[in-house]
Amino acid sequence: MITEADVEQYLTSLSNWGRWGPDDRLGTLNLITDEVRVAAASQIRSGRTLSLSRDIDPEAPDALGSGIALVQRFTGLHEVADHFDGKALRFDAVTEYVGISAHGSNTHVDGLAHYSWEGKNYNGFPESDTTSRFGAKSLSVHHAEAGFVTRGVLLDIAALHEVPWLERGHAVTPEELEAAEERQGVRVRPGDALLVHTGNVAAILTDGPDAVGPGARQAGLHASCLPYLCERDVAVLGNDGVQDAQPSGFGLDFLRPIHTVGLVALGLWLIDNMQLTELAKVCQEERRWEFLFAALPWRMVGATSSASNPVAVF
Amino acid sequence: MITEADVEQYLTSLSNWGRWGPDDRLGTLNLITDEVRVAAASQIRSGRTLSLSRDIDPEAPDALGSGIALVQRFTGLHEVADHFDGKALRFDAVTEYVGISAHGSNTHVDGLAHYSWEGKNYNGFPESDTTSRFGAKSLSVHHAEAGFVTRGVLLDIAALHEVPWLERGHAVTPEELEAAEERQGVRVRPGDALLVHTGNVAAILTDGPDAVGPGARQAGLHASCLPYLCERDVAVLGNDGVQDAQPSGFGLDFLRPIHTVGLVALGLWLIDNMQLTELAKVCQEERRWEFLFAALPWRMVGATSSASNPVAVF
Amino acid sequence: MITEADVEQYLTSLSNWGRWGPDDRLGTLNLITDEVRVAAASQIRSGRTLSLSRDIDPEAPDALGSGIALVQRFTGLHEVADHFDGKALRFDAVTEYVGISAHGSNTHVDGLAHYSWEGKNYNGFPESDTTSRFGAKSLSVHHAEAGFVTRGVLLDIAALHEVPWLERGHAVTPEELEAAEERQGVRVRPGDALLVHTGNVAAILTDGPDAVGPGARQAGLHASCLPYLCERDVAVLGNDGVQDAQPSGFGLDFLRPIHTVGLVALGLWLIDNMQLTELAKVCQEERRWEFLFAALPWRMVGATSSASNPVAVF
Amino acid sequence: MITEADVEQYLTSLSNWGRWGPDDRLGTLNLITDEVRVAAASQIRSGRTLSLSRDIDPEAPDALGSGIALVQRFTGLHEVADHFDGKALRFDAVTEYVGISAHGSNTHVDGLAHYSWEGKNYNGFPESDTTSRFGAKSLSVHHAEAGFVTRGVLLDIAALHEVPWLERGHAVTPEELEAAEERQGVRVRPGDALLVHTGNVAAILTDGPDAVGPGARQAGLHASCLPYLCERDVAVLGNDGVQDAQPSGFGLDFLRPIHTVGLVALGLWLIDNMQLTELAKVCQEERRWEFLFAALPWRMVGATSSASNPVAVF
Repeated sequence: MITEADVEQYLTSLSNWGRWGPDDRLGTLNLITDEVRVAAASQIRSGRTLSLSRDIDPEAPDALGSGIALVQRFTGLHEVADHFDGKALRFDAVTEYVGISAHGSNTHVDGLAHYSWEGKNYNGFPESDTTSRFGAKSLSVHHAEAGFVTRGVLLDIAALHEVPWLERGHAVTPEELEAAEERQGVRVRPGDALLVHTGNVAAILTDGPDAVGPGARQAGLHASCLPYLCERDVAVLGNDGVQDAQPSGFGLDFLRPIHTVGLVALGLWLIDNMQLTELAKVCQEERRWEFLFAALPWRMVGATSSASNPVAVF
Repeated sequence: MITEADVEQYLTSLSNWGRWGPDDRLGTLNLITDEVRVAAASQIRSGRTLSLSRDIDPEAPDALGSGIALVQRFTGLHEVADHFDGKALRFDAVTEYVGISAHGSNTHVDGLAHYSWEGKNYNGFPESDTTSRFGAKSLSVHHAEAGFVTRGVLLDIAALHEVPWLERGHAVTPEELEAAEERQGVRVRPGDALLVHTGNVAAILTDGPDAVGPGARQAGLHASCLPYLCERDVAVLGNDGVQDAQPSGFGLDFLRPIHTVGLVALGLWLIDNMQLTELAKVCQEERRWEFLFAALPWRMVGATSSASNPVAVF
Repeated sequence: MITEADVEQYLTSLSNWGRWGPDDRLGTLNLITDEVRVAAASQIRSGRTLSLSRDIDPEAPDALGSGIALVQRFTGLHEVADHFDGKALRFDAVTEYVGISAHGSNTHVDGLAHYSWEGKNYNGFPESDTTSRFGAKSLSVHHAEAGFVTRGVLLDIAALHEVPWLERGHAVTPEELEAAEERQGVRVRPGDALLVHTGNVAAILTDGPDAVGPGARQAGLHASCLPYLCERDVAVLGNDGVQDAQPSGFGLDFLRPIHTVGLVALGLWLIDNMQLTELAKVCQEERRWEFLFAALPWRMVGATSSASNPVAVF
Repeated sequence: MITEADVEQYLTSLSNWGRWGPDDRLGTLNLITDEVRVAAASQIRSGRTLSLSRDIDPEAPDALGSGIALVQRFTGLHEVADHFDGKALRFDAVTEYVGISAHGSNTHVDGLAHYSWEGKNYNGFPESDTTSRFGAKSLSVHHAEAGFVTRGVLLDIAALHEVPWLERGHAVTPEELEAAEERQGVRVRPGDALLVHTGNVAAILTDGPDAVGPGARQAGLHASCLPYLCERDVAVLGNDGVQDAQPSGFGLDFLRPIHTVGLVALGLWLIDNMQLTELAKVCQEERRWEFLFAALPWRMVGATSSASNPVAVF
């Protein structure tokens, strides 16, 4: 059993700071090389494709009870007449203003500026580089312009335990990740998008959140998975939850160690609150747990998040 | 030379209404079959990848002068302390609320509810299905959950004329599309994402917009390209502009015939204001104008737009 | 007992259309003449002043459960450094972007464009004058630039019944209004701001809403008060609720007859969801139920609402 | 001529910290006593009333070129049908979401949390009391719930110089304030709302801003007026500009000394960018420069600003 001191040590021992140069802003996305993409393309065999996102719905902006998610849509009707002094033309157009706080319930990418530790972001960029006016100046999501196109691997921990979802608070261990690899006949390798199916989102959507806000119990990864993520050189970590098992088993400074160590030390891009239920079913049907994975964060300057619709292509 | 009556006739003669059933909400995305995706995967050879979007920047929300584009980002600093009664922890988090009117200057997908003709959207859905409260109820972009993963083809009309960009107002004809096919040794086929490079965005970014709002002259497709788009069964049309040459050469009812006939009759998904300059250069270097194309609209219920970062993988 | 046909008849019989000219946009505010203001000034005797608004709080945007109220505040920290390239100066500034949907729970003015009947607003302006782009073109709240500065009269119906609040759904009759006048020794006259204390808001804040949305039972005025409001030439009607007793006792077309007949036929400005508990107490202490009333809607072009902080000065 | 050291000294010598208790959040509003309000009421003689605000217009959100003002209005059409499953009723309702950054061009109240000096706000509250999540926790504008109802005095400096507006950059001195008092036969006294007419807003609206952002030259008060404001115990300072003459004549730390010393040391509430042109004309016509002044900031918890429509009643 690791201690809080071990987790703190990970911030140093697992660090990728400097690995891709002192000015690197991409972190583990450097692992998605051209070769990795070519190899990933060979995963496309049947063309079967499915979305790994849930709907983003202004009528249910915070379905998982994060307490911070927000979705708004203001629709502009009859825009054509409005542009032509009220003159009715035969065609018409609709527009909208959409507002979103993607962190929280909705399926979203976490950029590297999202978390800091003692005033530092990934690669040593100071937290103070993020300001109200300019947002994240050094580690904005728009740097990830080539997107995440790589091999995806699903490790189905719920299936490993033969349940539709793990219990709230279940903390997945590296041993479980390895057991799932063995059961599925797959091995996570550098540059992969690793998706971990716990069934957590399905559980919340079925039975409701345990609580609203950071006190809710959720299935997720235990901090002891961090060396695995580092050794395997995972490029993107996705999860049907907030990555971290909640509670984490540690004090408040390590409320979310996968976030803190992952984003800050490893420079690991995260995708929270994915919808993996259907994917797990399809993998089982297809008897394979690897596929082409694509997620394309928007090029929003200064943002730490991107609501995203990742897809798997078999 | 076609007349306005011809364009109006296209609304009927080129119509895909009913082709994929009376309740179809996907239009030309039906053309991206599993087989099309498998064939598209074979385009990945070197793994070289590039973004086809411009930055979305709150400091320059309407760089092309559309008059309607809007980008806002409100950053939440020190969110961790705020959640724990001001108690300073060793980690910290940044969040944001982002607001966007994607229609206009920014690279974005146009969903099928964006345009209507005489009160009808694609497949006969009434324009009145779109309301202030619920947005686009019938033809929301979130239906396109599998995204656009298909073969991309760039037809480089600027290169055909050996210029970096076509003149403002240049209206690309179907003959030019075919000449570009011949010059490049490629042929657009069903399910393709067809990208047309006019250099229009580069011209505006270099020399400024001609005017703010719908009166600006822009290079784009002439309405006579519509039969070509229909016959070739293009699934997605992308452009470094607003698709339509402006002025269109017709009256106000056909201010934007590619939009009107494309979205309403063909059910053709559009991607406006792409950044194709770099792509054109890479295609020339690689001596091939086809690649895997991926764009993944978000699953925003009720929206007619999605700011997107499409990519090309060679 | 009046019938639905009677209420419909009020739309004609109580109409102020044309009374102040065919282009009038102020409705009953015309009744606040200079003389009315001079008389109102004489109400100020002790100078005791109190707010008649509740807090507008992003942490509790919809405390009354209207289902539509929204309050957001995005704070900009360290704006000075952001303006001077990060250079730390000795002074600093905070700004904010505030977003509000005032209709619903918060204390707000209803402008005359808020409601229409069969396509017409007050004075015959067409409902279609209100558009997505321009908002309320004809009857925007910004026309009320002189504000509401007049005599205020509180009629305390809860006190008439010797209760802190009337039962949910209690529909105040004109007889009760007159009984309150008699009990209090006051008479409502032309140009007055009439405030009706039912205790409804206090009841909801204490016991919670009956339901979220328009199905909730609330104390308020019965439609039969409309002739009273018209005959007395009330300029502004305020209430610790949504004016209308809910349910109204009529069909859906007359879900809110005080709103519909008041705004459309009388041109009567409304202030919903006021905080009148303290005012009722002070009136009782002071043994007078009249005072200078001031509410100053903002000059927001095209809006139908204004979150407001009305005050009473004794 | 005062020096920068003198201005810095004002932060101490003119300080009202502690004057109204260690927890006071109202500053100079404490000077608007009941007696002051009773005396102010006697100013109402003719009832003539006028607005001292400019329109707040989404079509011209930053008419003065502040670079930070923002006004948005998203209108909800046909809200009734949307609430009743599309069923058309005979009445209809319009709502809106309005978003505003009031600091900048629009007429607005500056609350005491807007400015800080070396980490401290008025009365010693730490600047860090203002956070992204909660806004201004200690010195929010909602504390000013009784509003500003007091005697207003206009000192017309433009008229003193017999011009419609002072030159850009003109810095009004205390001698000019006193000369205007003498010319007008009025004397500013404790609890007054002092309005200073420079014509600055009229000049900008006529000839355009000098520049966008803090570099623009503007007429306003010179820092040497601060002792006058303190000695006279002004409760509210209003201006057709940003209060401060720009440039201020001092270094960047004292870019806006009226703001910094006024808000932080005196606890003086400010109203920026008022429309005083009409008021100056009316005062001249009425041959009196005092009136009842009313401004009613909204009760927005955590805000440092309130778009406001102040009025003068003669």
